[in-house]
Amino acid sequence: MKLVTYRQDRQQRIGAVRQDQIIDLSKVAPDMLSLIEAGWPALAQARELIEAGANPIALEAVTLLAPIPLPRRNVMCLGQNYREHAQEMAEIRQEERKPPTFFTKATHAVNGPYADIPFEASVSAQIDWEAELGVVVGRSGKSVPIAQALDYVFGYVALNDVSARDLQYQTSQYFIGKSLDGACPMGPWIVTADEIPDPQNLHITCRVNGVTKQDGYTRQMIYSVADIISILSQSMTLDAGDIIATGTPSGVGYARKPQEFLKPGDVVEVEIEKIGLLRNRVGAG
Amino acid sequence: MKLVTYRQDRQQRIGAVRQDQIIDLSKVAPDMLSLIEAGWPALAQARELIEAGANPIALEAVTLLAPIPLPRRNVMCLGQNYREHAQEMAEIRQEERKPPTFFTKATHAVNGPYADIPFEASVSAQIDWEAELGVVVGRSGKSVPIAQALDYVFGYVALNDVSARDLQYQTSQYFIGKSLDGACPMGPWIVTADEIPDPQNLHITCRVNGVTKQDGYTRQMIYSVADIISILSQSMTLDAGDIIATGTPSGVGYARKPQEFLKPGDVVEVEIEKIGLLRNRVGAG
Repeated sequence: MKLVTYRQDRQQRIGAVRQDQIIDLSKVAPDMLSLIEAGWPALAQARELIEAGANPIALEAVTLLAPIPLPRRNVMCLGQNYREHAQEMAEIRQEERKPPTFFTKATHAVNGPYADIPFEASVSAQIDWEAELGVVVGRSGKSVPIAQALDYVFGYVALNDVSARDLQYQTSQYFIGKSLDGACPMGPWIVTADEIPDPQNLHITCRVNGVTKQDGYTRQMIYSVADIISILSQSMTLDAGDIIATGTPSGVGYARKPQEFLKPGDVVEVEIEKIGLLRNRVGAG
Repeated sequence: MKLVTYRQDRQQRIGAVRQDQIIDLSKVAPDMLSLIEAGWPALAQARELIEAGANPIALEAVTLLAPIPLPRRNVMCLGQNYREHAQEMAEIRQEERKPPTFFTKATHAVNGPYADIPFEASVSAQIDWEAELGVVVGRSGKSVPIAQALDYVFGYVALNDVSARDLQYQTSQYFIGKSLDGACPMGPWIVTADEIPDPQNLHITCRVNGVTKQDGYTRQMIYSVADIISILSQSMTLDAGDIIATGTPSGVGYARKPQEFLKPGDVVEVEIEKIGLLRNRVGAG
Protein backbone atom coordinates (compact mmCIF):
# COMPACT_ATOMS: atom_id res chain seq x y z
CA MET A 1 0.00 0.00 0.00
CA LYS A 2 1.00 3.59 -0.58
CA LEU A 3 -0.24 5.52 2.43
CA VAL A 4 -0.55 9.30 2.39
CA THR A 5 -1.50 12.17 4.62
CA TYR A 6 -3.36 14.73 2.52
CA ARG A 7 -5.13 18.03 2.89
CA GLN A 8 -8.42 18.77 1.17
CA ASP A 9 -10.81 21.58 2.06
CA ARG A 10 -8.57 22.49 5.02
CA GLN A 11 -9.06 18.99 6.48
CA GLN A 12 -6.06 16.77 7.10
CA ARG A 13 -6.76 13.08 6.48
CA ILE A 14 -5.03 9.82 5.69
CA GLY A 15 -5.60 7.73 2.59
CA ALA A 16 -4.16 5.17 0.22
CA VAL A 17 -3.05 5.87 -3.35
CA ARG A 18 -4.48 3.68 -6.10
CA GLN A 19 -3.24 4.75 -9.55
CA ASP A 20 -4.11 8.47 -9.74
CA GLN A 21 -6.70 8.36 -6.98
CA ILE A 22 -6.85 8.41 -3.21
CA ILE A 23 -9.10 6.17 -1.16
CA ASP A 24 -9.83 7.95 2.10
CA LEU A 25 -8.90 5.95 5.20
CA SER A 26 -10.36 8.28 7.83
CA LYS A 27 -12.63 5.45 8.96
CA VAL A 28 -9.59 3.35 9.83
CA ALA A 29 -7.66 5.95 11.85
CA PRO A 30 -7.63 9.72 12.37
CA ASP A 31 -3.95 10.11 11.41
CA MET A 32 -0.93 8.12 10.25
CA LEU A 33 0.61 7.62 13.70
CA SER A 34 -2.68 6.14 14.96
CA LEU A 35 -2.85 3.88 11.90
CA ILE A 36 0.70 2.62 12.49
CA GLU A 37 0.01 2.00 16.17
CA ALA A 38 -3.21 0.16 15.38
CA GLY A 39 -1.12 -2.46 13.57
CA TRP A 40 -2.17 -5.23 11.23
CA PRO A 41 -5.95 -5.21 11.91
CA ALA A 42 -5.99 -1.57 10.76
CA LEU A 43 -3.95 -2.40 7.68
CA ALA A 44 -6.36 -5.23 6.83
CA GLN A 45 -9.28 -2.83 7.16
CA ALA A 46 -7.45 -0.34 4.93
CA ARG A 47 -6.91 -3.04 2.32
CA GLU A 48 -10.63 -3.84 2.26
CA LEU A 49 -11.49 -0.17 1.72
CA ILE A 50 -8.95 0.11 -1.09
CA GLU A 51 -10.33 -2.99 -2.81
CA ALA A 52 -13.90 -1.73 -2.45
CA GLY A 53 -12.65 1.52 -3.98
CA ALA A 54 -15.59 3.63 -2.87
CA ASN A 55 -15.55 7.44 -3.21
CA PRO A 56 -12.15 7.83 -4.83
CA ILE A 57 -10.65 11.33 -4.82
CA ALA A 58 -8.43 12.55 -7.66
CA LEU A 59 -4.82 12.70 -6.46
CA GLU A 60 -4.41 16.05 -8.19
CA ALA A 61 -7.30 17.55 -6.21
CA VAL A 62 -5.47 17.32 -2.89
CA THR A 63 -2.24 18.52 -1.30
CA LEU A 64 0.03 15.73 -0.15
CA LEU A 65 1.76 16.40 3.17
CA ALA A 66 4.59 14.42 4.71
CA PRO A 67 3.04 11.02 5.54
CA ILE A 68 3.82 11.75 9.22
CA PRO A 69 3.57 15.55 9.30
CA LEU A 70 4.66 15.85 12.94
CA PRO A 71 6.50 12.85 14.35
CA ARG A 72 6.43 12.17 18.11
CA ARG A 73 10.14 12.72 18.39
CA ASN A 74 13.13 13.76 16.33
CA VAL A 75 13.94 12.00 13.07
CA MET A 76 16.95 9.74 13.72
CA CYS A 77 19.63 9.78 11.04
CA LEU A 78 22.79 7.94 10.09
CA GLY A 79 25.86 9.82 8.97
CA GLN A 80 28.18 8.47 6.30
CA ASN A 81 26.48 5.13 5.72
CA TYR A 82 27.34 4.70 2.03
CA ARG A 83 30.90 3.68 1.23
CA GLU A 84 31.64 6.31 -1.40
CA HIS A 85 29.95 9.10 0.57
CA ALA A 86 31.95 8.18 3.69
CA GLN A 87 35.05 8.49 1.55
CA GLU A 88 34.10 11.81 -0.05
CA MET A 89 33.34 13.38 3.35
CA ALA A 90 36.41 11.83 4.98
CA GLU A 91 38.57 13.41 2.32
CA ILE A 92 37.43 16.75 3.69
CA ARG A 93 36.87 15.98 7.36
CA GLN A 94 39.62 13.38 7.89
CA GLU A 95 37.34 11.17 9.95
CA GLU A 96 38.10 7.50 10.13
CA ARG A 97 35.57 4.71 9.63
CA LYS A 98 33.66 4.08 12.84
CA PRO A 99 30.57 2.34 14.24
CA PRO A 100 27.31 3.81 12.86
CA THR A 101 27.00 7.52 13.58
CA PHE A 102 23.55 8.67 14.72
CA PHE A 103 22.22 12.21 15.07
CA THR A 104 18.74 13.74 14.93
CA LYS A 105 16.68 16.30 13.03
CA ALA A 106 14.13 18.39 14.95
CA THR A 107 10.47 17.58 14.29
CA HIS A 108 9.72 20.88 12.52
CA ALA A 109 12.23 19.94 9.85
CA VAL A 110 9.62 17.54 8.46
CA ASN A 111 8.24 18.95 5.21
CA GLY A 112 5.90 17.90 2.42
CA PRO A 113 6.99 15.99 -0.69
CA TYR A 114 6.34 18.94 -3.02
CA ALA A 115 6.60 21.85 -0.56
CA ASP A 116 9.17 24.64 -0.72
CA ILE A 117 12.33 24.28 1.33
CA PRO A 118 12.62 27.55 3.30
CA PHE A 119 15.77 29.55 2.55
CA GLU A 120 17.06 32.18 4.98
CA ALA A 121 20.40 33.58 3.86
CA SER A 122 21.01 35.02 7.32
CA VAL A 123 20.74 31.54 8.86
CA SER A 124 22.75 29.48 6.36
CA ALA A 125 24.49 30.03 3.03
CA GLN A 126 25.36 26.36 2.56
CA ILE A 127 22.12 24.41 2.07
CA ASP A 128 22.88 20.97 0.66
CA TRP A 129 20.94 17.88 -0.44
CA GLU A 130 21.06 14.30 0.84
CA ALA A 131 18.82 11.69 -0.81
CA GLU A 132 17.97 8.99 1.75
CA LEU A 133 15.82 5.94 2.23
CA GLY A 134 13.60 6.63 5.25
CA VAL A 135 12.39 3.78 7.43
CA VAL A 136 9.16 4.06 9.42
CA VAL A 137 9.16 1.84 12.49
CA GLY A 138 6.01 -0.26 12.97
CA ARG A 139 6.18 -1.36 16.57
CA SER A 140 8.02 -0.79 19.81
CA GLY A 141 11.21 -2.75 20.37
CA LYS A 142 14.37 -3.00 22.46
CA SER A 143 17.40 -5.19 21.72
CA VAL A 144 15.94 -6.42 18.44
CA PRO A 145 18.02 -9.24 16.85
CA ILE A 146 19.18 -8.52 13.29
CA ALA A 147 17.29 -11.56 11.98
CA GLN A 148 13.98 -10.09 13.22
CA ALA A 149 14.75 -6.43 12.62
CA LEU A 150 12.84 -6.08 9.33
CA ASP A 151 9.68 -7.26 11.13
CA TYR A 152 9.82 -3.90 12.95
CA VAL A 153 9.54 -1.92 9.70
CA PHE A 154 6.13 -0.48 8.91
CA GLY A 155 7.24 0.96 5.59
CA TYR A 156 9.60 3.14 3.62
CA VAL A 157 9.66 6.75 2.39
CA ALA A 158 11.88 8.89 0.23
CA LEU A 159 13.55 11.54 2.38
CA ASN A 160 15.80 14.52 1.76
CA ASP A 161 18.12 15.15 4.73
CA VAL A 162 18.62 18.81 3.80
CA SER A 163 21.73 20.03 5.61
CA ALA A 164 23.08 23.49 6.44
CA ARG A 165 26.77 22.65 6.17
CA ASP A 166 28.06 25.85 7.78
CA LEU A 167 25.92 25.19 10.88
CA GLN A 168 26.54 21.43 10.77
CA TYR A 169 30.31 21.88 11.01
CA GLN A 170 30.32 24.99 13.19
CA THR A 171 30.62 22.73 16.25
CA SER A 172 31.27 19.03 16.73
CA GLN A 173 27.55 18.19 16.74
CA TYR A 174 25.37 18.12 13.61
CA PHE A 175 21.96 18.72 15.28
CA ILE A 176 21.49 22.43 14.52
CA GLY A 177 22.75 22.17 10.93
CA LYS A 178 20.30 19.33 10.31
CA SER A 179 17.29 20.92 12.01
CA LEU A 180 16.26 24.02 10.10
CA ASP A 181 12.49 24.31 9.75
CA GLY A 182 11.43 22.46 6.58
CA ALA A 183 14.78 20.73 6.11
CA CYS A 184 13.33 17.22 5.88
CA PRO A 185 11.02 16.76 2.87
CA MET A 186 9.49 13.31 3.07
CA GLY A 187 7.05 11.13 1.19
CA PRO A 188 5.14 11.35 -1.03
CA TRP A 189 3.79 8.22 0.65
CA ILE A 190 4.83 5.42 2.96
CA VAL A 191 5.19 2.25 0.92
CA THR A 192 4.32 -0.57 3.32
CA ALA A 193 7.06 -3.09 4.04
CA ASP A 194 5.26 -6.01 2.33
CA GLU A 195 5.90 -4.31 -1.04
CA ILE A 196 9.67 -3.95 -0.41
CA PRO A 197 10.95 -7.42 0.48
CA ASP A 198 14.58 -6.30 -0.03
CA PRO A 199 15.29 -2.69 1.03
CA GLN A 200 18.97 -3.17 0.12
CA ASN A 201 18.29 -3.38 -3.61
CA LEU A 202 16.88 0.03 -4.50
CA HIS A 203 18.19 2.67 -6.88
CA ILE A 204 18.42 6.08 -5.17
CA THR A 205 19.08 9.36 -6.96
CA CYS A 206 19.08 13.09 -6.41
CA ARG A 207 18.72 15.70 -9.15
CA VAL A 208 19.11 19.45 -8.87
CA ASN A 209 17.44 21.43 -11.66
CA GLY A 210 17.30 18.18 -13.65
CA VAL A 211 21.02 17.40 -13.32
CA THR A 212 21.83 14.13 -11.55
CA LYS A 213 23.94 14.77 -8.46
CA GLN A 214 23.60 11.50 -6.54
CA ASP A 215 23.16 8.11 -8.15
CA GLY A 216 23.52 5.12 -5.85
CA TYR A 217 22.05 1.86 -4.67
CA THR A 218 20.94 0.95 -1.17
CA ARG A 219 23.18 -2.13 -1.37
CA GLN A 220 26.11 0.30 -0.92
CA MET A 221 25.03 0.97 2.66
CA ILE A 222 27.68 0.13 5.23
CA TYR A 223 24.95 -0.69 7.78
CA SER A 224 21.76 -2.24 6.34
CA VAL A 225 18.24 -1.33 7.47
CA ALA A 226 18.22 -4.50 9.62
CA ASP A 227 21.63 -3.65 11.11
CA ILE A 228 20.48 -0.13 11.94
CA ILE A 229 17.29 -1.19 13.71
CA SER A 230 19.15 -3.84 15.67
CA ILE A 231 22.06 -1.58 16.68
CA LEU A 232 19.89 1.43 17.58
CA SER A 233 17.56 -0.74 19.67
CA GLN A 234 20.45 -2.12 21.74
CA SER A 235 20.73 1.16 23.59
CA MET A 236 17.26 2.69 23.30
CA THR A 237 13.66 1.59 22.87
CA LEU A 238 12.29 2.19 19.38
CA ASP A 239 8.66 3.20 18.97
CA ALA A 240 5.94 2.73 16.37
CA GLY A 241 6.09 5.85 14.21
CA ASP A 242 9.81 6.48 14.64
CA ILE A 243 11.50 7.65 11.45
CA ILE A 244 15.06 6.62 10.65
CA ALA A 245 16.99 8.18 7.76
CA THR A 246 19.54 5.63 6.59
CA GLY A 247 22.28 7.84 5.13
CA THR A 248 23.06 9.23 1.70
CA PRO A 249 25.13 8.08 -1.28
CA SER A 250 28.04 10.10 -2.64
CA GLY A 251 27.48 13.28 -4.62
CA VAL A 252 26.46 15.87 -2.05
CA GLY A 253 27.23 19.50 -2.86
CA TYR A 254 29.63 19.96 0.07
CA ALA A 255 31.99 17.29 -1.28
CA ARG A 256 32.06 18.59 -4.88
CA LYS A 257 34.97 20.52 -6.32
CA PRO A 258 34.14 23.33 -6.33
CA GLN A 259 31.49 22.98 -3.62
CA GLU A 260 27.86 23.49 -4.68
CA PHE A 261 24.97 24.69 -2.54
CA LEU A 262 21.28 25.24 -3.17
CA LYS A 263 19.95 28.71 -3.92
CA PRO A 264 16.43 30.14 -4.10
CA GLY A 265 14.54 28.78 -7.11
CA ASP A 266 16.51 25.55 -7.39
CA VAL A 267 14.43 22.39 -7.72
CA VAL A 268 15.71 19.31 -5.84
CA GLU A 269 14.36 15.87 -6.65
CA VAL A 270 14.97 12.75 -4.60
CA GLU A 271 13.83 9.53 -6.22
CA ILE A 272 13.93 6.02 -4.83
CA GLU A 273 13.01 3.01 -6.96
CA LYS A 274 9.68 1.44 -5.92
CA ILE A 275 9.26 4.11 -3.23
CA GLY A 276 8.65 7.48 -4.84
CA LEU A 277 9.79 10.93 -5.91
CA LEU A 278 10.14 14.15 -3.89
CA ARG A 279 10.26 17.44 -5.77
CA ASN A 280 10.97 20.52 -3.67
CA ARG A 281 11.75 24.03 -4.74
CA VAL A 282 14.08 26.13 -2.65
CA GLY A 283 12.05 29.12 -1.49
CA ALA A 284 12.89 32.78 -1.95
CA GLY A 285 15.47 34.27 0.43
CA MET B 1 4.39 27.47 41.55
CA LYS B 2 5.92 24.02 41.74
CA LEU B 3 4.11 21.90 39.17
CA VAL B 4 4.26 18.13 39.23
CA THR B 5 3.05 15.11 37.31
CA TYR B 6 2.17 12.40 39.79
CA ARG B 7 0.74 8.91 39.87
CA GLN B 8 -1.82 7.83 42.44
CA ASP B 9 -4.04 4.76 42.23
CA ARG B 10 -2.64 4.06 38.72
CA GLN B 11 -3.91 7.45 37.52
CA GLN B 12 -1.48 9.99 36.13
CA ARG B 13 -2.39 13.60 36.98
CA ILE B 14 -0.89 17.04 37.33
CA GLY B 15 -0.80 19.10 40.48
CA ALA B 16 0.96 21.84 42.40
CA VAL B 17 3.08 21.33 45.49
CA ARG B 18 2.26 23.39 48.58
CA GLN B 19 4.54 22.52 51.50
CA ASP B 20 4.18 18.74 51.87
CA GLN B 21 0.92 18.50 49.96
CA ILE B 22 -0.28 18.36 46.38
CA ILE B 23 -3.24 20.30 45.09
CA ASP B 24 -4.66 18.40 42.13
CA LEU B 25 -4.88 20.45 38.92
CA SER B 26 -6.75 17.91 36.78
CA LYS B 27 -9.55 20.46 36.37
CA VAL B 28 -7.13 22.87 34.71
CA ALA B 29 -5.57 20.49 32.19
CA PRO B 30 -5.25 16.73 31.62
CA ASP B 31 -1.43 16.79 31.51
CA MET B 32 1.55 19.12 31.81
CA LEU B 33 1.98 19.74 28.07
CA SER B 34 -1.67 20.82 27.81
CA LEU B 35 -1.23 23.09 30.83
CA ILE B 36 1.83 24.74 29.30
CA GLU B 37 0.07 25.21 25.96
CA ALA B 38 -2.99 26.70 27.66
CA GLY B 39 -0.78 29.56 28.88
CA TRP B 40 -1.46 32.24 31.46
CA PRO B 41 -5.23 31.75 31.85
CA ALA B 42 -4.55 28.16 32.91
CA LEU B 43 -1.82 29.26 35.31
CA ALA B 44 -4.21 31.83 36.83
CA GLN B 45 -6.80 29.09 37.30
CA ALA B 46 -4.14 26.86 38.90
CA ARG B 47 -3.20 29.67 41.29
CA GLU B 48 -6.82 30.00 42.42
CA LEU B 49 -7.07 26.29 43.11
CA ILE B 50 -3.82 26.35 45.09
CA GLU B 51 -5.02 29.30 47.17
CA ALA B 52 -8.39 27.63 47.80
CA GLY B 53 -6.38 24.58 48.85
CA ALA B 54 -9.25 22.12 48.59
CA ASN B 55 -8.68 18.35 48.85
CA PRO B 56 -4.94 18.35 49.43
CA ILE B 57 -3.10 15.05 48.93
CA ALA B 58 -0.06 14.14 51.03
CA LEU B 59 3.06 14.39 48.85
CA GLU B 60 4.32 11.13 50.35
CA ALA B 61 1.18 9.29 49.23
CA VAL B 62 1.95 9.67 45.54
CA THR B 63 4.73 8.82 43.09
CA LEU B 64 6.26 11.84 41.38
CA LEU B 65 7.04 11.31 37.70
CA ALA B 66 9.08 13.59 35.47
CA PRO B 67 6.99 16.78 35.17
CA ILE B 68 6.78 16.07 31.41
CA PRO B 69 6.95 12.26 31.34
CA LEU B 70 6.98 12.04 27.54
CA PRO B 71 8.02 15.22 25.72
CA ARG B 72 6.82 15.80 22.15
CA ARG B 73 10.32 15.70 20.83
CA ASN B 74 13.87 15.04 21.96
CA VAL B 75 15.36 16.95 24.87
CA MET B 76 17.79 19.52 23.45
CA CYS B 77 21.09 19.83 25.25
CA LEU B 78 24.17 22.04 25.29
CA GLY B 79 27.62 20.56 25.47
CA GLN B 80 30.43 22.19 27.42
CA ASN B 81 28.59 25.31 28.51
CA TYR B 82 30.40 25.91 31.81
CA ARG B 83 33.89 27.38 31.63
CA GLU B 84 35.64 24.87 33.89
CA HIS B 85 33.80 21.88 32.44
CA ALA B 86 34.71 22.97 28.90
CA GLN B 87 38.32 23.05 30.08
CA GLU B 88 38.25 19.67 31.81
CA MET B 89 36.75 17.98 28.74
CA ALA B 90 39.03 19.85 26.33
CA GLU B 91 42.02 18.60 28.26
CA ILE B 92 40.98 15.13 27.21
CA ARG B 93 39.32 15.76 23.88
CA GLN B 94 41.45 18.63 22.59
CA GLU B 95 38.42 20.49 21.28
CA GLU B 96 38.68 24.23 20.93
CA ARG B 97 36.09 26.73 22.17
CA LYS B 98 33.29 27.08 19.64
CA PRO B 99 29.74 28.42 19.22
CA PRO B 100 27.21 26.61 21.45
CA THR B 101 27.14 22.88 20.78
CA PHE B 102 23.66 21.32 20.63
CA PHE B 103 22.70 17.66 20.62
CA THR B 104 19.61 15.72 21.70
CA LYS B 105 18.47 12.99 24.06
CA ALA B 106 15.74 10.60 22.91
CA THR B 107 12.34 10.97 24.58
CA HIS B 108 12.51 7.63 26.44
CA ALA B 109 15.55 8.90 28.31
CA VAL B 110 13.19 11.01 30.42
CA ASN B 111 12.94 9.50 33.89
CA GLY B 112 11.37 10.33 37.24
CA PRO B 113 13.08 12.40 39.97
CA TYR B 114 13.45 9.42 42.33
CA ALA B 115 13.34 6.52 39.84
CA ASP B 116 16.16 4.06 39.23
CA ILE B 117 18.55 4.74 36.38
CA PRO B 118 18.64 1.49 34.36
CA PHE B 119 22.09 -0.12 34.14
CA GLU B 120 22.95 -2.62 31.42
CA ALA B 121 26.59 -3.60 31.54
CA SER B 122 26.36 -5.03 28.01
CA VAL B 123 25.27 -1.63 26.67
CA SER B 124 27.66 0.70 28.52
CA ALA B 125 30.30 0.40 31.23
CA GLN B 126 30.83 4.17 31.49
CA ILE B 127 27.67 5.72 32.90
CA ASP B 128 28.40 9.27 34.10
CA TRP B 129 26.50 12.13 35.77
CA GLU B 130 25.86 15.68 34.56
CA ALA B 131 23.88 18.04 36.82
CA GLU B 132 22.05 20.57 34.64
CA LEU B 133 19.51 23.35 34.85
CA GLY B 134 16.63 22.36 32.54
CA VAL B 135 14.53 25.02 30.85
CA VAL B 136 10.92 24.33 29.84
CA VAL B 137 9.80 26.51 26.93
CA GLY B 138 6.42 28.20 27.39
CA ARG B 139 5.48 29.27 23.90
CA SER B 140 6.34 28.85 20.26
CA GLY B 141 9.01 31.17 18.89
CA LYS B 142 11.38 31.73 15.97
CA SER B 143 14.23 34.27 15.87
CA VAL B 144 13.64 35.38 19.46
CA PRO B 145 15.73 38.44 20.44
CA ILE B 146 17.92 37.92 23.53
CA ALA B 147 16.14 40.75 25.36
CA GLN B 148 12.82 38.89 25.07
CA ALA B 149 14.14 35.35 25.38
CA LEU B 150 13.29 34.83 29.07
CA ASP B 151 9.64 35.62 28.24
CA TYR B 152 9.64 32.28 26.41
CA VAL B 153 10.51 30.32 29.56
CA PHE B 154 7.66 28.50 31.26
CA GLY B 155 9.82 27.25 34.10
CA TYR B 156 12.88 25.39 35.29
CA VAL B 157 13.69 21.83 36.40
CA ALA B 158 16.67 20.01 37.81
CA LEU B 159 17.95 17.52 35.26
CA ASN B 160 20.61 14.83 35.15
CA ASP B 161 22.06 14.42 31.64
CA VAL B 162 23.21 10.86 32.33
CA SER B 163 25.81 9.97 29.70
CA ALA B 164 27.25 6.68 28.46
CA ARG B 165 30.75 7.95 27.70
CA ASP B 166 31.88 4.89 25.74
CA LEU B 167 28.90 5.25 23.39
CA GLN B 168 29.09 9.06 23.38
CA TYR B 169 32.67 9.05 22.07
CA GLN B 170 32.41 5.91 19.94
CA THR B 171 31.58 8.14 16.95
CA SER B 172 31.63 11.89 16.36
CA GLN B 173 27.99 12.30 17.42
CA TYR B 174 26.79 12.16 21.03
CA PHE B 175 23.14 11.12 20.38
CA ILE B 176 23.35 7.41 21.19
CA GLY B 177 25.52 7.89 24.27
CA LYS B 178 23.03 10.43 25.60
CA SER B 179 19.86 8.48 24.77
CA LEU B 180 19.78 5.32 26.86
CA ASP B 181 16.32 4.60 28.26
CA GLY B 182 15.98 6.37 31.61
CA ALA B 183 19.13 8.49 31.18
CA CYS B 184 17.41 11.80 31.86
CA PRO B 185 16.00 12.04 35.40
CA MET B 186 14.10 15.29 35.69
CA GLY B 187 12.05 17.22 38.23
CA PRO B 188 10.89 16.81 40.90
CA TRP B 189 8.74 19.73 39.69
CA ILE B 190 8.77 22.58 37.24
CA VAL B 191 9.33 25.81 39.16
CA THR B 192 7.50 28.47 37.14
CA ALA B 193 9.62 31.27 35.72
CA ASP B 194 8.04 33.99 37.91
CA GLU B 195 9.80 32.43 40.93
CA ILE B 196 13.25 32.49 39.28
CA PRO B 197 13.83 36.08 38.10
CA ASP B 198 17.56 35.38 37.55
CA PRO B 199 18.34 31.87 36.29
CA GLN B 200 22.05 32.79 36.14
CA ASN B 201 22.44 32.99 39.91
CA LEU B 202 21.73 29.45 41.10
CA HIS B 203 23.96 27.02 42.97
CA ILE B 204 24.10 23.63 41.22
CA THR B 205 25.60 20.48 42.69
CA CYS B 206 25.87 16.76 42.11
CA ARG B 207 26.61 14.19 44.79
CA VAL B 208 27.33 10.50 44.36
CA ASN B 209 26.75 8.38 47.48
CA GLY B 210 26.80 11.61 49.46
CA VAL B 211 30.16 12.83 48.11
CA THR B 212 30.06 16.15 46.25
CA LYS B 213 31.28 15.69 42.67
CA GLN B 214 30.03 18.86 40.98
CA ASP B 215 29.68 22.21 42.71
CA GLY B 216 29.03 25.19 40.45
CA TYR B 217 26.92 28.24 39.78
CA THR B 218 24.77 28.95 36.75
CA ARG B 219 26.62 32.29 36.37
CA GLN B 220 29.55 30.20 35.07
CA MET B 221 27.58 29.34 31.93
CA ILE B 222 29.30 30.46 28.72
CA TYR B 223 25.89 30.91 27.06
CA SER B 224 23.08 32.10 29.37
CA VAL B 225 19.52 30.77 29.25
CA ALA B 226 18.53 33.86 27.25
CA ASP B 227 21.46 33.40 24.83
CA ILE B 228 20.53 29.75 24.31
CA ILE B 229 16.88 30.42 23.52
CA SER B 230 17.79 33.23 21.17
CA ILE B 231 20.52 31.30 19.34
CA LEU B 232 18.55 28.06 19.04
CA SER B 233 15.50 29.90 17.72
CA GLN B 234 17.50 31.57 14.95
CA SER B 235 17.61 28.31 13.03
CA MET B 236 14.57 26.40 14.27
CA THR B 237 11.13 27.09 15.71
CA LEU B 238 10.88 26.40 19.43
CA ASP B 239 7.65 24.98 20.84
CA ALA B 240 5.75 25.17 24.11
CA GLY B 241 6.86 22.13 26.09
CA ASP B 242 10.36 21.92 24.61
CA ILE B 243 12.99 20.99 27.18
CA ILE B 244 16.50 22.44 26.97
CA ALA B 245 19.33 21.16 29.17
CA THR B 246 21.79 24.01 29.61
CA GLY B 247 25.06 22.17 30.19
CA THR B 248 26.93 20.92 33.24
CA PRO B 249 29.61 22.35 35.55
CA SER B 250 33.01 20.70 36.02
CA GLY B 251 33.41 17.52 38.03
CA VAL B 252 31.99 14.78 35.80
CA GLY B 253 33.37 11.29 36.29
CA TYR B 254 34.88 11.06 32.81
CA ALA B 255 37.21 14.00 33.49
CA ARG B 256 38.44 12.79 36.89
CA LYS B 257 41.84 11.24 37.44
CA PRO B 258 41.36 8.37 37.63
CA GLN B 259 38.04 8.34 35.78
CA GLU B 260 34.94 7.43 37.80
CA PHE B 261 31.71 5.87 36.54
CA LEU B 262 28.44 4.90 38.16
CA LYS B 263 27.79 1.32 39.20
CA PRO B 264 24.66 -0.52 40.35
CA GLY B 265 23.55 0.66 43.78
CA ASP B 266 25.13 4.13 43.55
CA VAL B 267 22.86 7.02 44.50
CA VAL B 268 23.20 10.18 42.40
CA GLU B 269 21.75 13.46 43.61
CA VAL B 270 21.41 16.60 41.52
CA GLU B 271 20.42 19.69 43.46
CA ILE B 272 19.72 23.17 42.16
CA GLU B 273 19.09 26.08 44.50
CA LYS B 274 15.45 27.26 44.46
CA ILE B 275 14.59 24.48 41.98
CA GLY B 276 14.86 21.10 43.63
CA LEU B 277 16.64 17.84 44.26
CA LEU B 278 16.78 14.63 42.19
CA ARG B 279 17.79 11.42 43.90
CA ASN B 280 18.24 8.41 41.62
CA ARG B 281 19.67 5.02 42.38
CA VAL B 282 21.56 3.18 39.67
CA GLY B 283 19.63 -0.03 39.07
CA ALA B 284 20.97 -3.56 39.19
CA GLY B 285 22.91 -4.80 36.14
